[in-house]
Amino acid sequence: MRVFLDCLPCFLRQTLDAVRFVTNDEQIHERVVRQVLELVNNIDAGQTPPAIGQQIHRVIRRATENVDPYRQRKDDSNELAMRLYPQLKERIKNSSHPLEMAVRLAIAGNVMDFGVYSTLDDAEVVKTVDRALVEGLDPARVEEFAQAVGDAREILYLGDNAGEIVFDRLLIEELPPGKVTFAVRGAPVLNDATREDAERAGLTDLVAVIENGSDAPGTILEDCSEQFWQRFDQSDLVIAKGQGNYECLSGIDKDVFFLLTVKCPVIATDLGCDVGQMILRRGGVTSK
Amino acid sequence: MRVFLDCLPCFLRQTLDAVRFVTNDEQIHERVVRQVLELVNNIDAGQTPPAIGQQIHRVIRRATENVDPYRQRKDDSNELAMRLYPQLKERIKNSSHPLEMAVRLAIAGNVMDFGVYSTLDDAEVVKTVDRALVEGLDPARVEEFAQAVGDAREILYLGDNAGEIVFDRLLIEELPPGKVTFAVRGAPVLNDATREDAERAGLTDLVAVIENGSDAPGTILEDCSEQFWQRFDQSDLVIAKGQGNYECLSGIDKDVFFLLTVKCPVIATDLGCDVGQMILRRGGVTSK
Repeated sequence: MRVFLDCLPCFLRQTLDAVRFVTNDEQIHERVVRQVLELVNNIDAGQTPPAIGQQIHRVIRRATENVDPYRQRKDDSNELAMRLYPQLKERIKNSSHPLEMAVRLAIAGNVMDFGVYSTLDDAEVVKTVDRALVEGLDPARVEEFAQAVGDAREILYLGDNAGEIVFDRLLIEELPPGKVTFAVRGAPVLNDATREDAERAGLTDLVAVIENGSDAPGTILEDCSEQFWQRFDQSDLVIAKGQGNYECLSGIDKDVFFLLTVKCPVIATDLGCDVGQMILRRGGVTSK
Repeated sequence: MRVFLDCLPCFLRQTLDAVRFVTNDEQIHERVVRQVLELVNNIDAGQTPPAIGQQIHRVIRRATENVDPYRQRKDDSNELAMRLYPQLKERIKNSSHPLEMAVRLAIAGNVMDFGVYSTLDDAEVVKTVDRALVEGLDPARVEEFAQAVGDAREILYLGDNAGEIVFDRLLIEELPPGKVTFAVRGAPVLNDATREDAERAGLTDLVAVIENGSDAPGTILEDCSEQFWQRFDQSDLVIAKGQGNYECLSGIDKDVFFLLTVKCPVIATDLGCDVGQMILRRGGVTSK
């Protein structure tokens, strides 16, 4: 999915968030914003939003001399999600359809996105979780997902954000054992999950975790490592979490299930749904 | 009040709104956005937001060859407010404190702001009006306002947006007759009220209406006409509606009451209040 002009205000907001996480020096804020304005004024409009986000966050990290401006937010998100984990696990256990409940929670966890929200308090996450339990999710689509994960030999699960990956863990614990590889970003960008977050979420003890070799807030295949490509090619099913992965892979020739909470009008238009909606959608070759 | 970096995403959103009101041609959208990016990347950060908004909306009007991109939105807002007028008038009439009720409604009307909102439906306006009737407004401040308008010899009322000026009419009808001059912008900018809107709201039949001679979305005194200056100097009380007028006049040496609904975090920080709050605040010389 290509970038839209509507993404520009959002990129600027992200820039302000990131520089303010790192320093209170307003001169630095202004200098970085000007560098980002310069960059977005010269972008190739055929790129995906994560490809531009990648360049912007490189500028931010370089200019602030901080390799991971969102580290504190990621820690907070992981801690919140780990606090919620026992009760969410209980909910899945007591559910009449544990896989569906785990899918709902994995989608709800996608609300933990500092690319879209400047702030995110615990109450907002809990509210989203509660909403996810009752919101409409096509039972036929859930059945299709259950069938696909049952049939698959190798599943590649593309994570999205810190905190959210604790919710991913809940879903992975409901998937057939031995099939799943979990992929994280290759380096910090936004509040996207890296290996460190996978460790904190307990995912590294559960499944193979690989880094994708890229610092894009999404999965730009040509920017990923050879190790990642191999795993991607080997897998006969991909589970892709979040907007960034959707933006990069929505047109790809591969059996992919996209799980996300729709957080912006651009994505909503592309998906033909409303902002706030929970999405479980099969893309790729099988929907053609 | 000077511009903040947080204003930039908002300027870009305004640009997108305005060009889309005028044309569906995406090449024009992109061209105008690039021109605006160029402009904001070279702004003098000591200016007020309306001073920058003025330049941006000039670029938009020139590039789209449309002198009034918000005309349809302004018509819609005026019509909605005129439909609501009879019942609001009734509410004031039946109120135990008609002036306070009129002040509340005038502040609520400030929600009709396309500088902040991309869309605004009738339900949102009605909801804001309902909220305005119950929201906390310091009775002492209302008394101070009543005293000031009673004592004043000449009142200059600075309007803000189309639609909103029907709410201003409701307040002006409660002010002492013969004292008020109503000022509109000198040319179209955003959805700010011009003489045309004052006519549609029935204000021209009620009080003297003057144009301020400027196309800024606020009151930049040095950019206003000599006729406006005279009226401004003569008046011993100014009623200034909305964020744009606040941003321009918050530091001025004059007896001003600011009436606005706080719609953005930058203004909220400056005022020391929350977004969404209704503000009746005396500024200028008397508060020093």
